[in-house]
Amino acid sequence: MSKAYSLNQIVARLGGQIVDSAGHTSELDYLTRVSSLKNAKSGALSFFNDTKYTKQLKNTQASVVILHPQYQHLTSLPKVVTDNPYAYFAKVSSFLSPKATYAKGIHSSAVIHASAVIPQSCSIAAQVLIAENVVLGECVVIEAGCVIEQNVKIANNTRCEPNVTIKHGTTIGHDCTIYAGAVIATEGFGYAEDGELGDKRWVKIPQVGHVVIGNHVDIGANTTIDRGALDDTIIEDGVKLDNLIQIAHNCHIGAHTIIAGCVGIAGSAKIGQHCKIGGAAMILGHLNIADHVTISPGSLISRSIVKSGTYTALMPFQAHEDWLKTAANVRQLSSLADKIKHLDKTFELRLAALEKLESK
Amino acid sequence: MSKAYSLNQIVARLGGQIVDSAGHTSELDYLTRVSSLKNAKSGALSFFNDTKYTKQLKNTQASVVILHPQYQHLTSLPKVVTDNPYAYFAKVSSFLSPKATYAKGIHSSAVIHASAVIPQSCSIAAQVLIAENVVLGECVVIEAGCVIEQNVKIANNTRCEPNVTIKHGTTIGHDCTIYAGAVIATEGFGYAEDGELGDKRWVKIPQVGHVVIGNHVDIGANTTIDRGALDDTIIEDGVKLDNLIQIAHNCHIGAHTIIAGCVGIAGSAKIGQHCKIGGAAMILGHLNIADHVTISPGSLISRSIVKSGTYTALMPFQAHEDWLKTAANVRQLSSLADKIKHLDKTFELRLAALEKLESK
Amino acid sequence: MSKAYSLNQIVARLGGQIVDSAGHTSELDYLTRVSSLKNAKSGALSFFNDTKYTKQLKNTQASVVILHPQYQHLTSLPKVVTDNPYAYFAKVSSFLSPKATYAKGIHSSAVIHASAVIPQSCSIAAQVLIAENVVLGECVVIEAGCVIEQNVKIANNTRCEPNVTIKHGTTIGHDCTIYAGAVIATEGFGYAEDGELGDKRWVKIPQVGHVVIGNHVDIGANTTIDRGALDDTIIEDGVKLDNLIQIAHNCHIGAHTIIAGCVGIAGSAKIGQHCKIGGAAMILGHLNIADHVTISPGSLISRSIVKSGTYTALMPFQAHEDWLKTAANVRQLSSLADKIKHLDKTFELRLAALEKLESK
Repeated sequence: MSKAYSLNQIVARLGGQIVDSAGHTSELDYLTRVSSLKNAKSGALSFFNDTKYTKQLKNTQASVVILHPQYQHLTSLPKVVTDNPYAYFAKVSSFLSPKATYAKGIHSSAVIHASAVIPQSCSIAAQVLIAENVVLGECVVIEAGCVIEQNVKIANNTRCEPNVTIKHGTTIGHDCTIYAGAVIATEGFGYAEDGELGDKRWVKIPQVGHVVIGNHVDIGANTTIDRGALDDTIIEDGVKLDNLIQIAHNCHIGAHTIIAGCVGIAGSAKIGQHCKIGGAAMILGHLNIADHVTISPGSLISRSIVKSGTYTALMPFQAHEDWLKTAANVRQLSSLADKIKHLDKTFELRLAALEKLESK
Repeated sequence: MSKAYSLNQIVARLGGQIVDSAGHTSELDYLTRVSSLKNAKSGALSFFNDTKYTKQLKNTQASVVILHPQYQHLTSLPKVVTDNPYAYFAKVSSFLSPKATYAKGIHSSAVIHASAVIPQSCSIAAQVLIAENVVLGECVVIEAGCVIEQNVKIANNTRCEPNVTIKHGTTIGHDCTIYAGAVIATEGFGYAEDGELGDKRWVKIPQVGHVVIGNHVDIGANTTIDRGALDDTIIEDGVKLDNLIQIAHNCHIGAHTIIAGCVGIAGSAKIGQHCKIGGAAMILGHLNIADHVTISPGSLISRSIVKSGTYTALMPFQAHEDWLKTAANVRQLSSLADKIKHLDKTFELRLAALEKLESK
Repeated sequence: MSKAYSLNQIVARLGGQIVDSAGHTSELDYLTRVSSLKNAKSGALSFFNDTKYTKQLKNTQASVVILHPQYQHLTSLPKVVTDNPYAYFAKVSSFLSPKATYAKGIHSSAVIHASAVIPQSCSIAAQVLIAENVVLGECVVIEAGCVIEQNVKIANNTRCEPNVTIKHGTTIGHDCTIYAGAVIATEGFGYAEDGELGDKRWVKIPQVGHVVIGNHVDIGANTTIDRGALDDTIIEDGVKLDNLIQIAHNCHIGAHTIIAGCVGIAGSAKIGQHCKIGGAAMILGHLNIADHVTISPGSLISRSIVKSGTYTALMPFQAHEDWLKTAANVRQLSSLADKIKHLDKTFELRLAALEKLESK
């Protein structure tokens, strides 16, 4: 069960301005959770940030609404007014949500190498393997079925969800979450083509670099991050990676960059700080992306970007029959362009002749 | 080994009309399996549905061919004629294929919380973890290496393949299959940006919703489904998800919708019933997709779709040298369009002048 | 620790021509590793293959540089000159990198069916399940948390990384690596639509084919390969698959084809030998792709390709405001094309009239 707090306690802790609370005293003394506008009941704080949801705001049963000053006239409910309601909501949700707890100690079915350093504050679940020379910080949580290979270092308060694989030599900072099924530091995809024409083979290039992950990094479910070929793959502080992302060998992801699901980042790409990369985007290898760049979802980036801003590469979608015509024209685009050029040029010549005639 | 059935037994059970069986009596008494036209041997039923394979039909060694009335003249082999030969084939294959069997009971290496409810008809394999308050229905199969967290409910006859992770509070209906490596109900990707300019940080929004999965749902290998932020992520009855799909938090997938591999569905998207979404398509967040919509493979959908039909967004592929020209013209498209508009306008003016001259 | 070798020992083994070694004798007797130009220290061999890195070449601390004859004038450092420096580098790296070693034998926590054939040279790690009738070759390595189902055959020197799932009946050749979290031979995505209009259901088609994988194949982390519906899914010798790839049922991937991360290959596609498929590309079902075809990253291939060469389908990316104009024009492309056609035709008619006037 969640604990209850009064609105005064919440605002004392998180800031913001209480408005329209008069006459709601008893209700505002017993707030237990956050809810969506639509499903909120008494005792819940909710959140409004988009006029699309004005109707839900009118009908909500929430006890308190968190919103921006510009929207405060839209409801007479008790409210917390703040400049960044979304961040406020994140914090109040975090404050009210009961923290998950993990049994301290090492489950009897886990297999732990004698050389591993595991403080008593850690929680090591069933069916885990921890190999030689692994060093864990305080309060690290390793959930069921994880495999932590030799020489991995994981700092305080980091948590690995079930069935995560962290391969040898990886370093992970504090306060990270590695979600279920993620694979860190598997070998990069590096092959050289060898052999005579007609008998070509791929020769594997040993991948002897490591993966180095900063603090406050989240890595999504079933996401994969490859170890470096020679130097390291680096994920800086505060990076947030969603599910099913592929980060290839020797990538360098700058601090506080956020990457949505299904993205691929090819080898040796260097992404700046505070970038936002939309779902299913793809960034080719060896590119440099500046700080504060936003890449739209589904966009393939094929050259370096030196200037902050938003970049997009998308075919607009259409009803299929319309698209068929568009596609045919796209294929013909260079002959269309030639025809325009020709028309333009011929037209200019004829115009001159025409003007001569008119002037007669 | 498969059991053998006669064609009469099969048709008595599944319907369809037997044609041209005369003179094949003994062979048709001993049918054991389904095969492709190409690799069929005596005792096999095969299936024809596309004139592309007419030559394979001519040469097949199958004992029986299942096909539509319109194609029955294409072969003199014994046949079952039916209006939906593909569905018929699915059913006869299901009827003939030996059912996989799973040892009842709990493997000694599984770790089961004392509070979990596990009927004797269930099969719990090696290295499984089942946490507190899990409730399984009859004949549930949990294969090796699965992690089923606290308060998960799984109904009758549902099967989890190896190394699946189902996080706390998930509800799964009956007769579902969760394929290997899938991750259900990991935290959604929700962060609010906080802090002063120059010192921005991402604040995690606790994800306190659940995942609710209906009956007869299949979820492909290494597919990920996130739990809701506040409300639940919902997958309705009969939904079929292929491998490596990402379903973000608070999505709602309507009944009997089928989604091919590598698709991403962003947060809070609502997909209708009976939709068909092609491989590697991408649907942006907060969109509504109507019932009976088909999305072509690889197409990114950036706005809601209110009308059933097929929608596409694709660059047509070309030989690379041709594409280079196309790409250059695509970049120039707005200046090409301006030039056409200018030509069009100037041309009209000049035409008027020209007509005046001609009329002299 | 790496062992040390002299440059003469390396060249005696791997070929190539030593240049400019005079005066570096003692240093060249003690080579221990490969490094990037940038981070190399004394005792390292490095590698130069792109004039983009000329400055790094000038500043490198490497003891030896491997390069092509055309670049040998760019440095006075001791060097190995060879026609394929990248492949040479791969080989010297492989020669110098210490081989990973795996404890022979079966970990006590592994669960092994009595009928499985496991030579003493194999290494079976913790928390592994090996089911009935599995047959392993010599020196096979099965890392922690893997599930190897019944009737799987794996030949000599193949290694499965942690948490891999290999389902029943799969055959894998020798000298393969299956990276962490990969799932081999889960059921293909095959459903037939059945039922009356308004009550349509998906009927699962049993997937009774297998997966057959050749020798020297690598399969990336969290990649999924589906078993065949009736016949088998086939991956030929020397194929290299990166992470998070989906190979659907009944695909056939030709020998020595290399496929980068996040690619999807739909059912029954047949890819030739020595193809190169870029990251996040998508190949539709039932297509044939010829040998020696290169598919650019992110390109969707919607028809068969009968001729070797490079093929591309990409929207070029643009600053978002420019893209908005492009997208609007793409949607208008067929009306633009109509307007050009109209202009062209009208213009020709009017030109004739104009010429008549001029000739007066």
